[in-house]
Amino acid sequence: MSWLKNAWYVAGFQNELDDAKVVARTFLGVPVVMMRHSDGRITALEDMCPHRLMPLSAGKRVGDELECAYHGMRFGVTGICTLAPGQTHIPTQACVRNYPLVQRHGLLWIWMGKPELAAPELVPDIRWNDHPAWTPSRGYHHVEASFQLSVDNLMDLGHESWVHLRTIGQDDEEVIPNYPVKVTVKGEGLLHAHREMPNIDAPPFFAMLLEHQGKINRWQTAVGLAPSICMTDFGVYPVGSSPDGAYRSHVLHLLTPETEKTTHYFWSVARNKRLGDEALTQAVCKAIEQTFDEDAVVLKIQQSQMEKFGGPVPRVALKVDEAPIRARRMLEALVKKESEDPNFVYRPQLMIDDTTPELAMV
Amino acid sequence: MSWLKNAWYVAGFQNELDDAKVVARTFLGVPVVMMRHSDGRITALEDMCPHRLMPLSAGKRVGDELECAYHGMRFGVTGICTLAPGQTHIPTQACVRNYPLVQRHGLLWIWMGKPELAAPELVPDIRWNDHPAWTPSRGYHHVEASFQLSVDNLMDLGHESWVHLRTIGQDDEEVIPNYPVKVTVKGEGLLHAHREMPNIDAPPFFAMLLEHQGKINRWQTAVGLAPSICMTDFGVYPVGSSPDGAYRSHVLHLLTPETEKTTHYFWSVARNKRLGDEALTQAVCKAIEQTFDEDAVVLKIQQSQMEKFGGPVPRVALKVDEAPIRARRMLEALVKKESEDPNFVYRPQLMIDDTTPELAMV
Amino acid sequence: MSWLKNAWYVAGFQNELDDAKVVARTFLGVPVVMMRHSDGRITALEDMCPHRLMPLSAGKRVGDELECAYHGMRFGVTGICTLAPGQTHIPTQACVRNYPLVQRHGLLWIWMGKPELAAPELVPDIRWNDHPAWTPSRGYHHVEASFQLSVDNLMDLGHESWVHLRTIGQDDEEVIPNYPVKVTVKGEGLLHAHREMPNIDAPPFFAMLLEHQGKINRWQTAVGLAPSICMTDFGVYPVGSSPDGAYRSHVLHLLTPETEKTTHYFWSVARNKRLGDEALTQAVCKAIEQTFDEDAVVLKIQQSQMEKFGGPVPRVALKVDEAPIRARRMLEALVKKESEDPNFVYRPQLMIDDTTPELAMV
Repeated sequence: MSWLKNAWYVAGFQNELDDAKVVARTFLGVPVVMMRHSDGRITALEDMCPHRLMPLSAGKRVGDELECAYHGMRFGVTGICTLAPGQTHIPTQACVRNYPLVQRHGLLWIWMGKPELAAPELVPDIRWNDHPAWTPSRGYHHVEASFQLSVDNLMDLGHESWVHLRTIGQDDEEVIPNYPVKVTVKGEGLLHAHREMPNIDAPPFFAMLLEHQGKINRWQTAVGLAPSICMTDFGVYPVGSSPDGAYRSHVLHLLTPETEKTTHYFWSVARNKRLGDEALTQAVCKAIEQTFDEDAVVLKIQQSQMEKFGGPVPRVALKVDEAPIRARRMLEALVKKESEDPNFVYRPQLMIDDTTPELAMV
Repeated sequence: MSWLKNAWYVAGFQNELDDAKVVARTFLGVPVVMMRHSDGRITALEDMCPHRLMPLSAGKRVGDELECAYHGMRFGVTGICTLAPGQTHIPTQACVRNYPLVQRHGLLWIWMGKPELAAPELVPDIRWNDHPAWTPSRGYHHVEASFQLSVDNLMDLGHESWVHLRTIGQDDEEVIPNYPVKVTVKGEGLLHAHREMPNIDAPPFFAMLLEHQGKINRWQTAVGLAPSICMTDFGVYPVGSSPDGAYRSHVLHLLTPETEKTTHYFWSVARNKRLGDEALTQAVCKAIEQTFDEDAVVLKIQQSQMEKFGGPVPRVALKVDEAPIRARRMLEALVKKESEDPNFVYRPQLMIDDTTPELAMV
Repeated sequence: MSWLKNAWYVAGFQNELDDAKVVARTFLGVPVVMMRHSDGRITALEDMCPHRLMPLSAGKRVGDELECAYHGMRFGVTGICTLAPGQTHIPTQACVRNYPLVQRHGLLWIWMGKPELAAPELVPDIRWNDHPAWTPSRGYHHVEASFQLSVDNLMDLGHESWVHLRTIGQDDEEVIPNYPVKVTVKGEGLLHAHREMPNIDAPPFFAMLLEHQGKINRWQTAVGLAPSICMTDFGVYPVGSSPDGAYRSHVLHLLTPETEKTTHYFWSVARNKRLGDEALTQAVCKAIEQTFDEDAVVLKIQQSQMEKFGGPVPRVALKVDEAPIRARRMLEALVKKESEDPNFVYRPQLMIDDTTPELAMV
C-alpha cells in the first residue's frame, strides 16, 4: 500500500531543534533537514544540494542558512539559494524543496503532501504529551519494519503474554487474549479496541506504578488514528477502590514511515498521577524502552520473513487481528480517496474523550 | 539445475535432538524445525508460524508442542495448530507443513518431496557411520557454495596436491593427478572413481594413522551417490605388508543443499582399525576439520567467482573433471525423470561392497 | 557513459613489481594479475583460471609462471597454459587473456582495448613523475566513486574553500571561486583551466612549502587529459619576488576505473625546488594524503547519493562546472569515435609546456 501523503506526520520532539541544532531525518523516503531560525520560525528543507546531491546536513549552519560542504552554496529559510560562490547570477532551479513544518503539543509535525493543503488545524490532537494535567515519559525507537507492522502490533491487544512477559504481560493461567476485546469504529480513520481485566494479579510494571502488590482491575483501549498514530489508554486501580482514582496513562505511539521498511517511533507515556515524581518519570522511560525493544525484535523478524518468503501478513487471520485489519482498511480507504482526488484532505478526530472513560468494571 | 525432491537428505546427527533440543535448519530453501517427542518419535515442521511468519524455533517448546513467540499459538507433532489464544475455534489453515523425518545409521533424514512417497527403505545405506566394526570421527561444515561444487570437489581426485598440501596431499615430484583414475558407473545414480598409488612416501595424515614413516601403498575410491552423498574409501598399508591388513577409512560426505548457494556438510570418517582409540578419533576429527576448511575456502571463492563472472564450471574440462561431470549427468537424468513424473522415486544402491575391496596393488 | 578502451591506463607504480611480487588489481571491471619476469619483461594476465575461475593471484608464482591454487594448472608469460596436471594434452582453450603492459615514467601502463592497437608511443607523457629536475611525493587512494566524479572534482577549481579548508584552502573573506577561471581547449582530449590569485595570505600548506608566512602570489592550472588523467600545475612565490623563482608543483592525478563505481587513484606530486629534501618529500606526502582523503569522502557521498536518488550530476550547472563539463564532452566525443570505429586510437598530447608557464601576475 502507498502512503497517505496529505497528512501531518510527527517529525521529532520540539526541543530537538533547541540550541541552533540542525536535525536530518528521512520521512516517507525523502531526506529532510530541519532547523529553528533566529526569529523562532522552523523549517524543513529537502536535505540534498541541487548541484551535486550532497546532504545539506553534512555542511554547516551559517546564521539562518545552510551551507553546502562541497562548493559553499547557501540556502535560506524557504529553500531558495542565496549564494553560489564564484558567480553573481544564481540559477533559478538552484533551490531545494521546502516542506511545511509546525510545532504543536511539544512535537514537530511535517507535511510531505501538497504544501497548499497543509492547514495547521489538521494536526492531530494529542494534547496529553504537553498538558499540565499529565506528565510524559518520552523516547524514540528506530524500528526496522514498515509502519504497518508497527500499527498492527499496537492495535493487536493479544501479544503481551508472550512478547512482554517480563514487563507489562502477565504469566497467568488466564492469558490476556482470553479477555474479550470490543472493537469500535469511532469515525473516519479512528478505531478503538477495548478490553477489561478485572481482579488480576498486578504485572510487575503496574505494581510499580500503583505501589501496590495485591489484586487490581485493569483496562486498556488501543486507539488507532490514521495514518499512523496509535495510543494505548490504560488504567489500573486496586480492587475495591474507585475507578475514578485510577492510575491512568495515555501511551502515545507516534509512528512516521522512514522508508518502506523502516519506521520512526516517537513515544510519549503521559500519566495522570504522581505528576512531579521525576524518579517515576525515569522509571517509566526505562520500562517502556525495554518493552518497545521487545516489540522491535519481533517486528524486525516479521519484516525480514516477509521479504524472504513474500506475501502479506497475517496469512491466517485470528481474532487478535480484528483491530489491526480494520485499521488497515480505514487507512486504505483514505489512501484510495487521495489517489482519486489529490486535493483530498482528511481531518483527524479527537482520539479519546477523557471525560467519559470506558470504565465498566467494579 | 533444480534439486531432486523425492529423496532422503541428511538433516543432522541423531543425537542433536537429545535432551529435548529443538533444532532449526534450512533444507532446499525451506526453513525447518526438528524435535524428538516424549514418546521417541521425531518430527520436522516448517519453521514459520502461519499467522505472522515468526520462526517457531524462536518460540519455546511446551511439552511436545511448539509455541509461537508472538501470540502463543501452539503446534503439535503433525503440524496442526492445537491452541490459538483468545479463541476457541482454530482456523483449519492454521497449520504448518510436516516433513517426513526418520533416523537411520545414527543420522536424521528428511524428505522434502511428496510426503506419500517417503518410504524409509529408500534411505541410503551408509552403515559405516554406526556399525560396531567401524569407529567414526564426526563433524560439520557450513559451506558457502552450492552442493554441486562440493560434489565436484569430492569426486575430483586431482586437487589434493595443491589444496591439501599440508594435510592429506603430498609434495612430491610425482603429483597425485599423474596416477591414473578409473571411473565406473555402478548403476543408476552411483559412480566410482578409483586410483592406486603404490610405493609412495606417506603424507603426514597417513603416517599418523599407520604410525609408520616409510613407504606405503595407498588407494582411494571416490564414490558418488545421487543426489548428494559422497564417500571417499581409502586404504593405506606399509609396502611389503598385506592389503588385507590395510588401515581403511570410509569418509562419508553427507551434503544437503541449504540454499542455492550454501550447503550443509555433515561428515563422518569411519575407520576399521584402533577402534577404541579415543585419542585417534579426536586426532582424525582435527585433521579432517583442517582438510575440509581448505576445501571450504576454495569452494567459496569458486561460488563467488561464478556469481560475479557468470557461466557454469568447469569452463574448460580437464581429465580430473571426468568423475564430476559424469556425476552431474547422473543427477540431471534423475531430476529429468522426476520433472516428467512427479511420482518417480529413485532407489539408492549400496555405495560400496566392502567384501571385495578394489585392491590390485602388491 | 562507457569507458574508452583503446587507451593506456595507469596500472601501478613500476616498483610494485620488484622482488618478484605478483600484483592483482581490477581495471575496467576485469581482474588482472601483473608480474615481472626474470628477463625483465612484465606481463598482465586475466586473473582467473579458465578451469574453475580461481584467481591465479590466489595461487603461487613458480619461476615465471603462475600456478593455480586448485588443480595446479600453470600459465606462462603470454597466458598460455604450460601444464595441466594429470594429462599430457593441454586443451587449446585453456589459456588466459594477456593484456599489453608497459613501463614508462616510473609507472605501469595497461591497455584493455584491442591489443594490436597498443602502441607504446601512445603512453601519455607525464615525465614529471620520473625526471631529474623534479622530485615526486607519491601515493595511492582507493576511491569509492566513478572515475568521472573524480575527474569532475579535479577539474573543478571551486571546492577548495570548503572541502580543503584545513589544508590547501583558505578561510578568507574572498573565497577561491571568486577568482576567475579561464578554460581553454588545448587540442583533442586536452583541457586547461587556469586561475591566478595575486597577493593572498598563504594557506598552511603553501606557507610550509615556501617557508614564508607573508603575502604570496599563487596560480593553478587544472589540466585534463582524456580519458582520465589530470594534473594540477600550481606555483607560489612571495609577493615582490620573481615568478621565475616560483615553487612549482605538477600534481599528477592518475585515475583508472576499477569498476563502474570505484576508481584507482595513483598520485604523484612533483616539485621543482628543494629536490633533495627528503623530509619535505614526506611532509608533502602526508599533506596530500590528508587533502585527498577529504576529496574521497565527498566523492563517496556523491556516488552513493546518485545511486540512491538517480540521475546525472550536476543537476544544476554552476560556473565551477565549466571545466568538468567540457572535460566530459571531450571524453564523450572520443568514446563515440571508438564506438563507431573499433580501430580508432587517440593520441594524447603533452599536457603542459613547462617552458612557457602561464604567469601573468606581477
